Amino acid sequence: MDLRIGVIGTGAIGEDHIRRITTVITGAKVVALSDLNVDRAKNIAKKYNAKFYVTGEEVIDAAEVDAVVIASWDPTHAQYALASIKAGKFVLCEKPLATSKEDCKKIVEAEIAGGKQLVQVGFMRRFDRGYRQLKTVIESGKIGDPLMLHCVHRNPTPGPKHTTEMSIKNSVIHEIDVLRWLLGEDYKTAQVLLPKSSRLAEGGLRDPQIVLLETKSGVRIDIESFVNCQYGYDVQCEVVGETGTIRLPDPASVVMRSQGTLSYGIFSDWSDRFIEAYDIEFQQWVDGVKQGVVAGPTAWDGYAACITADACTEAREKGTIIPITMPECSTFYSK
Amino acid sequence: MDLRIGVIGTGAIGEDHIRRITTVITGAKVVALSDLNVDRAKNIAKKYNAKFYVTGEEVIDAAEVDAVVIASWDPTHAQYALASIKAGKFVLCEKPLATSKEDCKKIVEAEIAGGKQLVQVGFMRRFDRGYRQLKTVIESGKIGDPLMLHCVHRNPTPGPKHTTEMSIKNSVIHEIDVLRWLLGEDYKTAQVLLPKSSRLAEGGLRDPQIVLLETKSGVRIDIESFVNCQYGYDVQCEVVGETGTIRLPDPASVVMRSQGTLSYGIFSDWSDRFIEAYDIEFQQWVDGVKQGVVAGPTAWDGYAACITADACTEAREKGTIIPITMPECSTFYSK
Amino acid sequence: MDLRIGVIGTGAIGEDHIRRITTVITGAKVVALSDLNVDRAKNIAKKYNAKFYVTGEEVIDAAEVDAVVIASWDPTHAQYALASIKAGKFVLCEKPLATSKEDCKKIVEAEIAGGKQLVQVGFMRRFDRGYRQLKTVIESGKIGDPLMLHCVHRNPTPGPKHTTEMSIKNSVIHEIDVLRWLLGEDYKTAQVLLPKSSRLAEGGLRDPQIVLLETKSGVRIDIESFVNCQYGYDVQCEVVGETGTIRLPDPASVVMRSQGTLSYGIFSDWSDRFIEAYDIEFQQWVDGVKQGVVAGPTAWDGYAACITADACTEAREKGTIIPITMPECSTFYSK
Amino acid sequence: MDLRIGVIGTGAIGEDHIRRITTVITGAKVVALSDLNVDRAKNIAKKYNAKFYVTGEEVIDAAEVDAVVIASWDPTHAQYALASIKAGKFVLCEKPLATSKEDCKKIVEAEIAGGKQLVQVGFMRRFDRGYRQLKTVIESGKIGDPLMLHCVHRNPTPGPKHTTEMSIKNSVIHEIDVLRWLLGEDYKTAQVLLPKSSRLAEGGLRDPQIVLLETKSGVRIDIESFVNCQYGYDVQCEVVGETGTIRLPDPASVVMRSQGTLSYGIFSDWSDRFIEAYDIEFQQWVDGVKQGVVAGPTAWDGYAACITADACTEAREKGTIIPITMPECSTFYSK
Repeated sequence: MDLRIGVIGTGAIGEDHIRRITTVITGAKVVALSDLNVDRAKNIAKKYNAKFYVTGEEVIDAAEVDAVVIASWDPTHAQYALASIKAGKFVLCEKPLATSKEDCKKIVEAEIAGGKQLVQVGFMRRFDRGYRQLKTVIESGKIGDPLMLHCVHRNPTPGPKHTTEMSIKNSVIHEIDVLRWLLGEDYKTAQVLLPKSSRLAEGGLRDPQIVLLETKSGVRIDIESFVNCQYGYDVQCEVVGETGTIRLPDPASVVMRSQGTLSYGIFSDWSDRFIEAYDIEFQQWVDGVKQGVVAGPTAWDGYAACITADACTEAREKGTIIPITMPECSTFYSK
Repeated sequence: MDLRIGVIGTGAIGEDHIRRITTVITGAKVVALSDLNVDRAKNIAKKYNAKFYVTGEEVIDAAEVDAVVIASWDPTHAQYALASIKAGKFVLCEKPLATSKEDCKKIVEAEIAGGKQLVQVGFMRRFDRGYRQLKTVIESGKIGDPLMLHCVHRNPTPGPKHTTEMSIKNSVIHEIDVLRWLLGEDYKTAQVLLPKSSRLAEGGLRDPQIVLLETKSGVRIDIESFVNCQYGYDVQCEVVGETGTIRLPDPASVVMRSQGTLSYGIFSDWSDRFIEAYDIEFQQWVDGVKQGVVAGPTAWDGYAACITADACTEAREKGTIIPITMPECSTFYSK
Repeated sequence: MDLRIGVIGTGAIGEDHIRRITTVITGAKVVALSDLNVDRAKNIAKKYNAKFYVTGEEVIDAAEVDAVVIASWDPTHAQYALASIKAGKFVLCEKPLATSKEDCKKIVEAEIAGGKQLVQVGFMRRFDRGYRQLKTVIESGKIGDPLMLHCVHRNPTPGPKHTTEMSIKNSVIHEIDVLRWLLGEDYKTAQVLLPKSSRLAEGGLRDPQIVLLETKSGVRIDIESFVNCQYGYDVQCEVVGETGTIRLPDPASVVMRSQGTLSYGIFSDWSDRFIEAYDIEFQQWVDGVKQGVVAGPTAWDGYAACITADACTEAREKGTIIPITMPECSTFYSK
Repeated sequence: MDLRIGVIGTGAIGEDHIRRITTVITGAKVVALSDLNVDRAKNIAKKYNAKFYVTGEEVIDAAEVDAVVIASWDPTHAQYALASIKAGKFVLCEKPLATSKEDCKKIVEAEIAGGKQLVQVGFMRRFDRGYRQLKTVIESGKIGDPLMLHCVHRNPTPGPKHTTEMSIKNSVIHEIDVLRWLLGEDYKTAQVLLPKSSRLAEGGLRDPQIVLLETKSGVRIDIESFVNCQYGYDVQCEVVGETGTIRLPDPASVVMRSQGTLSYGIFSDWSDRFIEAYDIEFQQWVDGVKQGVVAGPTAWDGYAACITADACTEAREKGTIIPITMPECSTFYSK
């Protein structure tokens, strides 16, 4: 039996997830959806043979909906996550889980109160083949203990109305989560360096930025965030261990020799770069939900990422090193 | 509505396809199957909730079966393909289409007589992202006309009872098809070089071999076939055009620096190397069948590959250059 | 006419330079040498047909010596550099120019007082083909203004009696000089991060370290220094500009496919990695001296590097960001 | 004492060798030269402080000349090599040793009659770091016995008056020599394939060509020769052994990410690609001559290359497989 999914938010990402559920993965279908842009939502509902609802809450409460995907505007994530928990339904919430750590905390508390993990956060990089290989090698001990991570996260150009703060909250937050998962530990301090800005960064945007994180055991992480790099979408991650290093490969692409150079293409878009990770994320989420479990990043992971991103923002604003205080993780999540 | 598929042959490849249809792609399910190994087949039928039939013909004729996958022993492919045509059902037949060109011809004639294309041959490389990129670049004209192709097809070790002839008929046949598709033209001559054999080639096997093909327009192709290369499963393809060259990339893999070397892993198995190509092949086949069309290599392509492989075998046996005579392609296929 | 060179210090590096002058480059020969290890020095003198002197000063003052190479113990560099200036002879002094910035300043002042540039400091990376290519691309404007540099400097194991301070003063000092040359500007601040130490770092050594430098225009530089990386000698440098990035290539090395991996060798030793840079450095130094000019890093460059390294040491000890105050550069050097 | 060299032929290559002897390597100087282009030769003589002679024979016989470099027009190589042998002087002769195998034979016989090896042929690839690494790995046994070699030799455009025959005699002859040296054995058969010609190949030139060689032990070699490849000067060589493969690396070059691609530069010229090989060749030749030995490819190697190239030409003209008969190698050379 197909898992019947309700999707809240049918913008670019939401519609892509509907396509993914319908034509790529197996064992699920979209039966309900809603969006503030009613016309667009109704058209998509017709195309995919799903029912249109006026509000996200209606989608969540609809009898025919087994599980929920939240792909709406960031500030609405929290309310829909809470409503899904209240309805006792599994929910895959696009990152961020919420736009404030207070809201994240409410979700965590609601979930604990309900006694069952229901929330998965859309940190799809944990499902990327490359990051999985990194984790496998780290855990094998082949490079000894990790000591440093050098990371890069570049976009050719920023989206509309992009702010200096969003570079961390919406972009570097992927590194914040996936590196915490890679290393299996929390962060201790944050610092942000502001290099000379690119002249192509508009409207007072500080770009690039360099985020420095320190984990509890002392691993040092540097993350270059550059949303105006022009040349492509590029994610790099090197783990330096005591006896060796490992790094994400560039995605495979045909190698051309022409006009005096050897070259291969770099993706221009994150959705192409991580398309396979998204596909795996959704397939495993559906498979897990059918077995009654959350098989990916939890609400707690979303909370931890939010706390860390907030510390980075504070570090940038104050120009100092900021300690990161993580609340004790409930055994509800750590088991 | 899911496409209901009957699978003939539930050995390693057949079972993998059942897994693929059930848990990877969308829009299809396996409802019937058969295999000479009855116990194994019955277990798989139970696991996937499909009905076991004693014969392949029963699977083909079963009312609940919309379309057929043939993954049985090579010599049985032709009879099941013919039976599927007779039953008017779409069929995806693992390569080779048949073990003789006479049988291939019968299938082609039956299909033409039936008036509808129903057969797709399992040349999955046409669905590989790398080969597709090669084709896109060739057709863009960016490297001018292709003049030469340098190809490599290596297995770490051969399967049981592997013969010198099988290196071409079962292995190089993938290059024969995919290069013909890449270039969009047929072959004119074949020659086979026999280098000094590896001391690791057992039982009188001549390994490696080098297959030289010439297309009608004069493109020259060399294909190294080496089924005892020991180090991994490795497929390479370089297209040399008038103004540039392009080549398949190695599959992306984590890059390690350790113990004096930089290294990355090479696959050991063809099923891992081409897993994505198989997934795409099946998804597109299912999508096409639902729309009533064959969206991949046709019976004619299987016939052309068989004629070429036979010419290579003759060239190897006689030690000379053999002309390849392709019958005129019916407009039934070329349209 | 060959330039007649006197070499002070015939340890490993000194002897290698004697070999280089004698058998690799053209237009020079070693005629005099001295070392505290008299037996070793006398043997080398005999082998290369040079005259042994008891003291470095005697070498400098010897009538048959046209120019001097200082490859002695670091703390003696300053006195020999000063003596060479006094003798009016060109001198190539291995880095560091001196072990304190006060001594560097004395050398600079002596040179200015003498009215002629005579001192070149042995920062050979400026002669490395890769760094030169980086500089060419930066100056071409192809990647816009540089904004960030990500650098790595790894040794498999440290030399004997290696200290935490030496990682910067003897090793990172190469980056300090070559990046200042690449960017054509001085540094503004320094900070040092201390990651968790490798368990293979002995005797209380803090290893790795991460040096953060900021240039006057705001370019941000991170330099990983890791003298216990185990796997090889590895130098990396990526320049991130407004519209593209460039990085040093790994040295070319035969690519092997074997035992499930593709791999190539990494150097184990800095003297192999930069052998060509040393050869070019010496050839250009000799050619320049014959024309009466210093064609490489000057005493001022050695002074600037020393000031920066001292700031890094202070930053590490205090755990804070340290401003770097460079004295005004005399037109004597900037012309 | 510097080796005093006379250079016959001061065209582009000859002048480059004069520069090399004078300003790059150590232990030699050019004292005499000649060329048909008298004005050019006299200017070069003045620039390098050498004496101009009207004929090559005068250069060879000049009392002040210790050793000879032949860089004149190919058809004159034989006469100067013979004259050098007659004069009892060491000679480095640019490839080819002679333009006919009969002339090669005369040189070999003259050298044997004289009782001393004096001739070295300018096959500089034997001194290339990459080929040397290949040879080291082959001899280590790490990849088992070599079974196949896949080689590529591409020029962006041909020189003036380039003919189909010259692609082999002047270009592929480098592979003929260096592969024979790599494998340590002679050739048994030759065949030449003529792919569709590039539309950029002018004046009836057949380009590209594929040369197929078989060694006495059965190793199979394919060499693509393409003198109109447009994109750069590119030499590739892959050795396939029983348990692994090795290949020449691309020359190291700065890696750029820009405008949607990762790229690095390819040389446009053979003299840049092999500049280091030439430098090493000359340094080792000078060092060897001073010790009275020929430390590189001998007259016999030049003879063997000529015989093989002639067989390739015959194979191309006749369109068949041509057996290569090598005369028994005198112990004079094989010792």
